[in-house]
Amino acid sequence: MIDQSQLEQAFSQGRARVREHGELRYTSFIHDHNDIARGTAIFANRTVYGYPRIGRVVHLGTGLQEQFKGSFWAEEKINGYNVRVFKTAGQVLALTRGGFVCPFTTDRIGDLMDPSVFDRDPDLVICAEIAGPDNPYNESFPPFVSHDVQLFVFDLQRIDRPGTMEQDEKLALIDRYQLPAVRCFGHFQPQDLETIKRLMLQLDADGAEGLVFKNAFKSAKYVTAYSTLSDIHSTSEFLTDMPAEYFTGRILRLALFLQEQGLTHTRELDRRLGDAFLDGLTQAIEQFQREHKVYHTHRCRFRHRDNAEMLLAHLEQAGSHRVQINRRDLRREGEYWVLEFDRAYASINGLLGHLLSGGLVFD
Amino acid sequence: MIDQSQLEQAFSQGRARVREHGELRYTSFIHDHNDIARGTAIFANRTVYGYPRIGRVVHLGTGLQEQFKGSFWAEEKINGYNVRVFKTAGQVLALTRGGFVCPFTTDRIGDLMDPSVFDRDPDLVICAEIAGPDNPYNESFPPFVSHDVQLFVFDLQRIDRPGTMEQDEKLALIDRYQLPAVRCFGHFQPQDLETIKRLMLQLDADGAEGLVFKNAFKSAKYVTAYSTLSDIHSTSEFLTDMPAEYFTGRILRLALFLQEQGLTHTRELDRRLGDAFLDGLTQAIEQFQREHKVYHTHRCRFRHRDNAEMLLAHLEQAGSHRVQINRRDLRREGEYWVLEFDRAYASINGLLGHLLSGGLVFD
Repeated sequence: MIDQSQLEQAFSQGRARVREHGELRYTSFIHDHNDIARGTAIFANRTVYGYPRIGRVVHLGTGLQEQFKGSFWAEEKINGYNVRVFKTAGQVLALTRGGFVCPFTTDRIGDLMDPSVFDRDPDLVICAEIAGPDNPYNESFPPFVSHDVQLFVFDLQRIDRPGTMEQDEKLALIDRYQLPAVRCFGHFQPQDLETIKRLMLQLDADGAEGLVFKNAFKSAKYVTAYSTLSDIHSTSEFLTDMPAEYFTGRILRLALFLQEQGLTHTRELDRRLGDAFLDGLTQAIEQFQREHKVYHTHRCRFRHRDNAEMLLAHLEQAGSHRVQINRRDLRREGEYWVLEFDRAYASINGLLGHLLSGGLVFD
Repeated sequence: MIDQSQLEQAFSQGRARVREHGELRYTSFIHDHNDIARGTAIFANRTVYGYPRIGRVVHLGTGLQEQFKGSFWAEEKINGYNVRVFKTAGQVLALTRGGFVCPFTTDRIGDLMDPSVFDRDPDLVICAEIAGPDNPYNESFPPFVSHDVQLFVFDLQRIDRPGTMEQDEKLALIDRYQLPAVRCFGHFQPQDLETIKRLMLQLDADGAEGLVFKNAFKSAKYVTAYSTLSDIHSTSEFLTDMPAEYFTGRILRLALFLQEQGLTHTRELDRRLGDAFLDGLTQAIEQFQREHKVYHTHRCRFRHRDNAEMLLAHLEQAGSHRVQINRRDLRREGEYWVLEFDRAYASINGLLGHLLSGGLVFD
């Protein structure tokens, strides 16, 4: 339970704020506050704690030895966005990592999983990744989700309790409630390095994002070359709107993956890295020359029109002057409302405008 | 003439400082101060003004139209470091861009050009690029300078006068004094775009850095894909010690070059970009695993041992905690003292140490 004085302090320090979702008012922690994680949200007197941050290893051999003294589980990491799904005051809601009730995920939750699980187990919080082409946030998505979005459960929490459930209990509940979960590849020891490296190569070939290793004490993630290249490919169009370290960090990660797997850099991997940058940028330049604007069109489907409006209002407000959201269309298609909107980033547009009209840069 | 009150103000604001080169004391402007450019240096009562900053165009078609209303010259840009060479109190000295008397260039100036020109023309300041494998500063160098270093004159200044000479006067003096100068490709109009684009493709194929366009009012530079890829290739080993924008800026520049030349991105160019990153990084990882340190060995030759010592002392002091300089060898070889030293950057070494020993990153 978060006591009143902690809450008041968090508000006064700008770490918590009141948010609204339709009629619903809730408090969310937009920054860590003492031991309360960012993303923690309070609905009346029920608290959904933030999902813990997971560190990354970029060298498997030493990383598993160093981080896990004993055994650990290995589960698939999915390239999407993280939500916590739960039920409060009769409503099933989906919170983003940052503690915001996502109108899109909340709208579609009944399509993605069976919400009656919360009637059987009212304190359950389902931690899941939402992934697929028709999502409002990410440019990239797993190749094995070919349309719309899917939900992949990777952890469970309890209302009013920080931290995630232990693996045995989680797997038992996933099984009992028939939840759509990420693939669990089993229980390993740090000495199983060669097995894990082979598994990682297979995941890389399949276009998977990577693995999360976890036991009762610790979690760590490790991603494939595919995931790194896919991140670069899908964001190079907005090269200057991301922190430049977004790209250099991934290039280093890729080099370490290849070197550890004994792939060093083949001509094909060199080509894929170059293409990841130049394909997006060439498209951006050509789009700018054609339409005087670089943007990416998102499309997502809603059950209720209100939720589409709520999402748009949120995106417009959240992006402030760095991102411009432009509604294209909101139309009825069968049982759904289909929303289409463009997301245009300010920096790449301003810079290409300057450079392509012959402007000078001093660097 | 820079008056005493300007000088005092610059000192008090930390924009000027007194430096020493052996027995010689001089003042240099380490930052711009009012209209006095960074790199300006005062020797007794003679001032050598800073070399002006040159803006970059990254789109030739619009850049030439926008920056040059009338005609302009096009000269080769050389990948090296910028010096101003002049004579004062009986000594020929070479100042770096930042206004520091370079002990290496000063030592070797008699090998690189005929210093008697300063006896014929005592107020002459020669602005030149020093380029080649055996230099103490740059990792990369032009493929057409296969050993040691060469000097390429690209502008002339006068003692006590800011700014560079006009092109006609400069070309006449280069001819009269038989100075080793950069290639001048002639006089153009903005409408000569196709000719300049073809010239640029030829320079790219030759491994040249690019062109500087100049007339009496303005200068602007434009570089080849080769140069961009070479910069990335030679610095990717120290990926995290450069501002990350160093890399993203070059990737954008490359994409614009290719797109304007109608090359978009071929498989071969994709491969070269990927290789530019992964080759350096793979070498860095392997060097770290072998020697517990990533470093680059520089080698340069001196006429006088004292100058080698002075250069090392300067590099050690200038790098502070970000760069570690390690002397390998200083030995006599024929007429020269050959200095070998390693330059190791702190960030990539610290980061690889953490990552390769299995450390976590939170990003």
